[in-house]
Amino acid sequence: MKIALINENSQAAKNAVIVNALKTVAEPLGHTVFNYGMYAAEDKAQLTYVMNGLLAAILLNSKAADFVVTGCGTGMGAMLACNAMPGVFCGLVIDPTDAFLFGQINDGNAISMPYAKGFGWAAELNLQDVYRKLFEGERGLGYPKERAAIMAKNRGILKDVKAASCKDLLTVLKTVDQDLLKAAVAGEKFQEYFFPNCQDQAIGDYIKSIL
Amino acid sequence: MKIALINENSQAAKNAVIVNALKTVAEPLGHTVFNYGMYAAEDKAQLTYVMNGLLAAILLNSKAADFVVTGCGTGMGAMLACNAMPGVFCGLVIDPTDAFLFGQINDGNAISMPYAKGFGWAAELNLQDVYRKLFEGERGLGYPKERAAIMAKNRGILKDVKAASCKDLLTVLKTVDQDLLKAAVAGEKFQEYFFPNCQDQAIGDYIKSIL
Amino acid sequence: MKIALINENSQAAKNAVIVNALKTVAEPLGHTVFNYGMYAAEDKAQLTYVMNGLLAAILLNSKAADFVVTGCGTGMGAMLACNAMPGVFCGLVIDPTDAFLFGQINDGNAISMPYAKGFGWAAELNLQDVYRKLFEGERGLGYPKERAAIMAKNRGILKDVKAASCKDLLTVLKTVDQDLLKAAVAGEKFQEYFFPNCQDQAIGDYIKSIL
Amino acid sequence: MKIALINENSQAAKNAVIVNALKTVAEPLGHTVFNYGMYAAEDKAQLTYVMNGLLAAILLNSKAADFVVTGCGTGMGAMLACNAMPGVFCGLVIDPTDAFLFGQINDGNAISMPYAKGFGWAAELNLQDVYRKLFEGERGLGYPKERAAIMAKNRGILKDVKAASCKDLLTVLKTVDQDLLKAAVAGEKFQEYFFPNCQDQAIGDYIKSIL
Repeated sequence: MKIALINENSQAAKNAVIVNALKTVAEPLGHTVFNYGMYAAEDKAQLTYVMNGLLAAILLNSKAADFVVTGCGTGMGAMLACNAMPGVFCGLVIDPTDAFLFGQINDGNAISMPYAKGFGWAAELNLQDVYRKLFEGERGLGYPKERAAIMAKNRGILKDVKAASCKDLLTVLKTVDQDLLKAAVAGEKFQEYFFPNCQDQAIGDYIKSIL
Repeated sequence: MKIALINENSQAAKNAVIVNALKTVAEPLGHTVFNYGMYAAEDKAQLTYVMNGLLAAILLNSKAADFVVTGCGTGMGAMLACNAMPGVFCGLVIDPTDAFLFGQINDGNAISMPYAKGFGWAAELNLQDVYRKLFEGERGLGYPKERAAIMAKNRGILKDVKAASCKDLLTVLKTVDQDLLKAAVAGEKFQEYFFPNCQDQAIGDYIKSIL
Repeated sequence: MKIALINENSQAAKNAVIVNALKTVAEPLGHTVFNYGMYAAEDKAQLTYVMNGLLAAILLNSKAADFVVTGCGTGMGAMLACNAMPGVFCGLVIDPTDAFLFGQINDGNAISMPYAKGFGWAAELNLQDVYRKLFEGERGLGYPKERAAIMAKNRGILKDVKAASCKDLLTVLKTVDQDLLKAAVAGEKFQEYFFPNCQDQAIGDYIKSIL
Repeated sequence: MKIALINENSQAAKNAVIVNALKTVAEPLGHTVFNYGMYAAEDKAQLTYVMNGLLAAILLNSKAADFVVTGCGTGMGAMLACNAMPGVFCGLVIDPTDAFLFGQINDGNAISMPYAKGFGWAAELNLQDVYRKLFEGERGLGYPKERAAIMAKNRGILKDVKAASCKDLLTVLKTVDQDLLKAAVAGEKFQEYFFPNCQDQAIGDYIKSIL
């Protein structure tokens, strides 16, 4: 699985801790981690949590990433921004049980975590545990497993409702403030990571056109 | 403020505990609580968490409610469903500090809470503390207050992005599975609470037309 | 390692869930679990959290057990009772990171957990994660490992201070209310589990004398 | 009530945040806060968590303080050290509900909190909420109140058991490593705060004799 990490400006200084925890867990499980940044508070390309949502939507809808790990100070802003986007189902995950249940019951394609609130000493241990619960096995099996069918059914209905509610991503990209969009894809490594992995010609072309 | 409580089927049995905690806190603060149910597991009108999202969107977009309190087993499904809807900004809130920060920083119009995961003995105390942090003072003041302006600016940008991303609610209501929509508004008290408080003629008329 | 599980009366009904989680994790790691009960709310032998402390002290000081897993509604009472006893160093553990840090930094011989407060749906997942963090590797290695020496030194000082503060267990057993003591060792399986594993003649003899 | 704050060396840098939160809540409620330090990481008088336990015991047993607020990185070490001492009943408190239940059910005379683990941004909000739950009303009323009598009874039994288990404090003070004891009372403000409030001549005299 291709896992994209996206950090916004308020917690950018923790990017190294987060990507280290994520790689430590995900790479031995056979996943690839793409660190889209931000990498440090003083990065030229500054992402706000709203841009995190846009970027997550671009990566997931174009299949440049299979899963997005994002967050902000409380995790709430990045979660709201992600879930405002078509095709993004982003959980707010705080502890390993949250991660497991989100993976098995909701089977979304993104998580947002708090990297400031509750993020104290030894928080890297919790990060690793959370990532392990998400990435070590198959997701979407339900919990308890006897309820897998009804859980899958509700996920399908939610997907349909969200499809009815949101415009397609290309339309969204063309409609949103274009400066905001440009800022969302201005990260130092964005082009290196995105274009070789993008599997949607139209989205890729549009992003190219605004760079 | 008009506060609507919406519970889905898996945790319907806890509706009495939840509404009691909510009223205990919110009514002395001058708010009015509308308990849209479900009221008990065996209610004739069964709400799934996806329907919670639809119902929340109807209440908020029509201004029949100013704030929605919802949830499900983990809070995640109801949160995803709410945030899939236009005009709904739903936080996932677990503890009082979450509630306070969501109110001050994100200033959304809905919260989803876990009513099964982590919901053990004395959980009614946490419910009351959460509601108090949300409803006792002005929201949207920022935390820390020195950062109020930048926080308000980001909220505005998120609102614009979500407006670009979502169709208007009337379109959504007409597009979604009409049986799902009917089920979402089938609650025993829905008509009694909704129609006198609905302030959007078009939404009200459309709901009437499908009953 | 010989791990003893002790539940008090208010949460006795959860004994099956707890012992199942404990055995699921600990037995494949090579540990043996002794379920000292209570086993159900209506057990003839009723343990209060204070008795949990007495029983834990008997098991640990006699080396009939190497580690005690106990708790109560909030975990607090059983923790206080355990730590009131000589030779017992009991952590209050809520999440997997607590468990890991307690094992590595404090390296005590008992944990108390809340089995009512915060103990909701899917709590068995957290139990398993906690037990795994405690029992899967070596304890007392420090975290971070660079601070292992200072952490070990402080543990040693704490042990000395507690030795100065508490009377030896045999004296305590002879001094406490003898009906309380009898009740603490009245569990259905106590004699079957305790006597073959007890490695302290004097403690064993005294317990025999009061049965 | 006289509330004593005691911080150990690993989290000494947070003393200002903690005492500020404690005074903000406790003083308007009519309590007096004595900040026994440490005050900063580089203080001449360095307290370890084991010394926190000794100091807490001196303050509580001499009635120089009615309640002790202490802690360490995880809260566990300071809690273990406090509970190793005669006459100290120290809860490990993480959230406001813990605080409330500890106050109502266990009615101890000390709390230990984690000031590193889980202590992230906005943690001062949780501190205030915790202190409020502890100090704003009467403690020991039970929760639920219908169970007050049985809860009080168990507290009494625990007190008796601990009295049987521990030596009296004066004996402990004379028995422990005298350098450790000297270090525990070496804080810059100790003498100023302790002697005028100490209500136990023998403890006071012994402390004087070792200064």
